[in-house]
Parts: sequence; C-alpha cells; structure tokens
Amino acid sequence: MRIIAADSGSALLNSDFKAQLTLSTAAVVIDPPYTHPFAIREQQALKRIDDRSVILDELKLCLELARQYRPDAVHVDVTLNSLDLASISAEELLKTIPSKLARRFMEPLAPYMVEVAREIRRTCGAPVLLVGKESVPVRVAELTAGAHGVLRGARKALNEGVKVLIGLPRACTSKVADGRLTLVSLLPAEEDVEGYAADEEGVLMRVQLREYVNPVASGFKMIEVNPKEVEGATG
Amino acid sequence: MRIIAADSGSALLNSDFKAQLTLSTAAVVIDPPYTHPFAIREQQALKRIDDRSVILDELKLCLELARQYRPDAVHVDVTLNSLDLASISAEELLKTIPSKLARRFMEPLAPYMVEVAREIRRTCGAPVLLVGKESVPVRVAELTAGAHGVLRGARKALNEGVKVLIGLPRACTSKVADGRLTLVSLLPAEEDVEGYAADEEGVLMRVQLREYVNPVASGFKMIEVNPKEVEGATG
Amino acid sequence: MRIIAADSGSALLNSDFKAQLTLSTAAVVIDPPYTHPFAIREQQALKRIDDRSVILDELKLCLELARQYRPDAVHVDVTLNSLDLASISAEELLKTIPSKLARRFMEPLAPYMVEVAREIRRTCGAPVLLVGKESVPVRVAELTAGAHGVLRGARKALNEGVKVLIGLPRACTSKVADGRLTLVSLLPAEEDVEGYAADEEGVLMRVQLREYVNPVASGFKMIEVNPKEVEGATG
Repeated sequence: MRIIAADSGSALLNSDFKAQLTLSTAAVVIDPPYTHPFAIREQQALKRIDDRSVILDELKLCLELARQYRPDAVHVDVTLNSLDLASISAEELLKTIPSKLARRFMEPLAPYMVEVAREIRRTCGAPVLLVGKESVPVRVAELTAGAHGVLRGARKALNEGVKVLIGLPRACTSKVADGRLTLVSLLPAEEDVEGYAADEEGVLMRVQLREYVNPVASGFKMIEVNPKEVEGATG
Repeated sequence: MRIIAADSGSALLNSDFKAQLTLSTAAVVIDPPYTHPFAIREQQALKRIDDRSVILDELKLCLELARQYRPDAVHVDVTLNSLDLASISAEELLKTIPSKLARRFMEPLAPYMVEVAREIRRTCGAPVLLVGKESVPVRVAELTAGAHGVLRGARKALNEGVKVLIGLPRACTSKVADGRLTLVSLLPAEEDVEGYAADEEGVLMRVQLREYVNPVASGFKMIEVNPKEVEGATG
Repeated sequence: MRIIAADSGSALLNSDFKAQLTLSTAAVVIDPPYTHPFAIREQQALKRIDDRSVILDELKLCLELARQYRPDAVHVDVTLNSLDLASISAEELLKTIPSKLARRFMEPLAPYMVEVAREIRRTCGAPVLLVGKESVPVRVAELTAGAHGVLRGARKALNEGVKVLIGLPRACTSKVADGRLTLVSLLPAEEDVEGYAADEEGVLMRVQLREYVNPVASGFKMIEVNPKEVEGATG
C-alpha cells in the first residue's frame, strides 16, 4: 500500500527553551516497509507553534504529491477516529471533535480542509484519513519536516551569524551522514522510523550542531546551531 | 511469589491493517524474576477484537493452571485499582467501573467472572486481582498469547495457501530461535520481558515471516506470513 | 542556563510489592547538557508514599542550594503550566489546580510553598517554576533521590540484618561503579539522563543487590537488598 502523509516539525526556541515558530511543513510518499520517505515535498512554515492553519498547508502538499504518486490513502495529522475527510461535510467534521476548544480552532479551517480533501479524492481516488497520532506515515512526515526545519535553522544561524536553538519533534535524535540530516525515532517499536533532509547547499559543514535534551520539555531533544568560526582556523 | 495471569493477543488484520479477530488466549505461570512464562495454557480465541467475553476464557485458563500450580496471586487483564475479584459481588464490581460504556459491556459478564474468581480462591486461596495494565505477568501473558497467535496465523497461511497479516501486541518484536517464536517487549524497563510459543509442528520452517511497523497503528508491529513456494526450489 | 530542581524517589515496598514509604528527597544543581547533577543536597524522607508534604522539603533543599549556586531557574515537581510560584499568592496557586482532590491536598501546604518560593527569589532572583513532569532537571532529581534511597535501603538491610525491597523511580535501571550507585533513565530520549549517590561508607560491598521488574507496577523496577553472609565465607 502507498500512503501519503504530511506534518509540520521542529521549532525555533527562545532562550527559555520554549517553542516559538514552527520551521517546516512536509508531505511524504511512503511505501512498504513504511519507515522512511520515498519522495518528499517541503516548505518553510514559520507559523506560531499553536497556529493550526498549518493543517491546510499540509493538505495542499499532500494534494501536490497525490497528483504525481497516486497513493492508496492519505494520512492527515488530525486524530479523529480515522474518519475520511473527503467523505464528510465541514459540519460533520466539526460535530465529531469532542473538545470545545479544538472545535473553535478548527471552525474557520474546516470548509477549506474538506475542499482540499475532496480534490485529493477526485485526483487519485484515495481516502483522506484523520488517523493522526496513530499513523506511522504521519510520524515519518513529522521527522522529515523536523529534519528540514533543522536545516532551515542552520541556514538562519549561518546567514545571520547568530546562535540558533531548534526544538526537535518528540523523542527523536539527529545524525548527519551522506550529505543528509536524518532524524531517527526513539519511540518503542519505531527503531527504523526516520525522516531526512538533503543538505544540497552544504550548510551542515559550515555550522556546529550540538544536541541536548530540552530541559523544560521532557522527551524532546533540541539542537544548538553555531556558525563555525573559520577565520584563523588551521584545519 | 508465584503469579498466574492471562490475556489475549495478536489479531488477524484486514487489508487496511485494521484488527479483526483476536487469535489466541493464554494463561501463564510466572515465578521470579517475573519476565517469562514458566508454564503456559493456551487456546484459540477467534473472537471479534472488541468482544470482551474473552475475559471469561482468560479466567477459566487461570483456574486450570491454579489447580496445578498453586499461585500466590492471580492477575486479570482488567484495570480496576487491583481489587480482588474473588472478594466482591458482581454488583460491587460493576459499581467500581467508572466508564458507563465499559460498565454496559461488563454487565452480562460480571456474575460469571465473580463465579470463576471465587472458584480460583477456593482452589488455591489466591486473590484474583484486577491489576490489568499495571501487571507484568499480564504483559507476559499478552506476549505469550501473541506468540501463539502468530503460530496460529502461520498455520492458517499454510493450510489455506494464502498470505496472512497478523497484528502483534503493543510495542513488541518477534524472533525465531530454538524451535520457538518469541515476542520480546520493546517498552522501557521491559527489556527482558517476553512470551513464546513452541513450534511443535515445524510450521515456521514452511512459511516466510516479514515484520513491519503497522502504518495505521503507531507503536504496533505486524507480521506478514507467506507460505514458502517449495515446488521447484533448488535450495 | 543553570537550573536547580528537587524531587523524592525510591520507596520501601511491602511483600506485595506495593510502595509504602518514600526513602529520599534530593535537590540538584544542573548545568548544560542537563543530564546529570553537578551538586546534590539530599535528606532522608520516610514519608508515606501519598504524603504531598515532601514538596516543602523539596523546596527547602532548593533554597539551600540556591544560596550557594545562584541558579537561573528553579524547577519544582508540581505540574501547573510552568507557573512561577514566587509570583503568585497561595490563593492563586490553589485556583489553578484543576482537580478538586489535588486542591484539597495542596491547601494546607500552599502558603508555605509560596513563602519558600519567595525566599528563593529574594536570594537569587530565580523564578520557581511549576514545570513538574515536563522538566528534565526534576527527572535528574528523581533519579538522584532514587539512588540515595537505594543506599538508605541497603543501609537498613545491613543494620537490621533483613531483606529489603526497594521500588525504583519509573523506568530506570541501576548500576554500581566507581563507588557510586547510579540510576539511568530508560525513557525514550533520556539515554544519558541519570542521577547517582556516592557510597561513602562502602555499604554496597556488604550487601547483595538484585534488580527485578516490579510485577505489580509495569514500567518500574525494584531492587532486593540482602546483607552478604560473610561468616564462614571462603572468598
């Protein structure tokens, strides 16, 4: 089964280690064994961490990939009993949201979400499932967005000549190899689940990355990026 | 302390990776260090995944083992503050269930549960504790049932000449060695906790097992079983 | 950033493996990379496992360390949206506690908590954050208290010549090396997070430690301590 999923990940932290801005939104194409992306579409996010409108960007990226890759299902980062967003109305969607607060956040977005979901179904016939936290492809999308977010943060550190603190997605760790930054899941039963970003501009060679636990967000790691001081270096 | 516990595990998945039928129910005898079964009683389950009547089969298997192995305590896969099911009435049991829905499911079963629990106590004096998710022996029983469920699924694949998809219990992985299929826990602090099934009929040599993450059930793995194509094979 | 945090950990278990008495309260000074204590203040707890008044001892130990180590923030093992306890009144504190039961437990303690928190702020200017379960320094304090608790339990076994059962903090394992007992976290993304206790009296050489899973507390390990039988030993 081929699945397309999207999520957003990695955040700029302030000096108190609190997440401020989401850095990246990514959609991924996943084939068996469902552990890593086969194709990626990504864009900068730069939205406030509590801005749920990223869901629309996520759906639009899924639509773009769906046109090219013909998935059997699309997974969305909204957890609502795996309902098919392409088969319900905005009103039905809102009625199924148990939390009043979440419903209010979703209300202005619901009609647009349903519209893009129906366009996805028209394009490739796939259901658009609100499977959210249950979905491994959504997790792969989160790690993929997270990896791109680290690259975006590293580029910012380099361009502005400043230290940048980046909060990673929940329970993952970074590695740099083969011209890629990869985020590997640390959750039980996700040993092989990962996302990555290709470092096409060679940003990673020009910065220093240090990974820490985030002291105010148990279960999350963070990366401190510093531009390398190359002047006067002997190496 | 000797503990007897029971649970059900592994499920037949449909082509959307959704669990349909529970495959196996097992009771286990556990001695220190409480990580693996010392003795096992197992039976086919084949009940719908939401059919709570498996609890009666689980209790009956505990009773059978209790007669032979004289436990100090029996652990049941119902989480109700570790109440002793052998010391309360069906009415008291139902009153302690906080969720209305769970209470309605339990209502027709409660009198029978209490009856078997009292029989267990008469047999060996042990309390029958509703310790559920807090119990490591219940986890060992779940992994043991899960391992037997994989064997049952493999036998089905072999007998019917079809591919079979089996969903494993939460956060565990399989290994085949020494004529056994073992499920090992992947949860934190459960490194050595496992259950197994002896492959007495040599089923495992005649099928191919592939383990994947279940893409629609984060934290769960699944096994795809295919009968080996032996005709014309040279190896 | 320098953080001071406190927590209590390890408990005496009864023969049914149920926690009875908390063994140790510890405050720790944490510097980057936030994974282990830089300085420790510890005291015996010996309070009932549900006695929330340990929070006052924890705050007082934080105050003592704050005088000497000038932290940027203090983390408390109460999870209330990271509120600053030094900036609110006891009434405001109680109003923010959602659970009625928790509020009733906290009511007699709140004025004293606020008083110590304000004293901490007067001493070093640091906020006293109710970050609780989100805090890695609180986890380090829990593991540090837990390690001291094991030593205290071992001393009890030695002094009284009896077997002692000690329940460890959630999801950690013990190791003995370099004259220390260390508790290492087993939670995802906490690979390097640990606390320790220096065995200055050489207690560990005179007892035998065996670590088990706690069969009635899934995710928790326990340690059985037995005084070594040295009389007549040939080794």
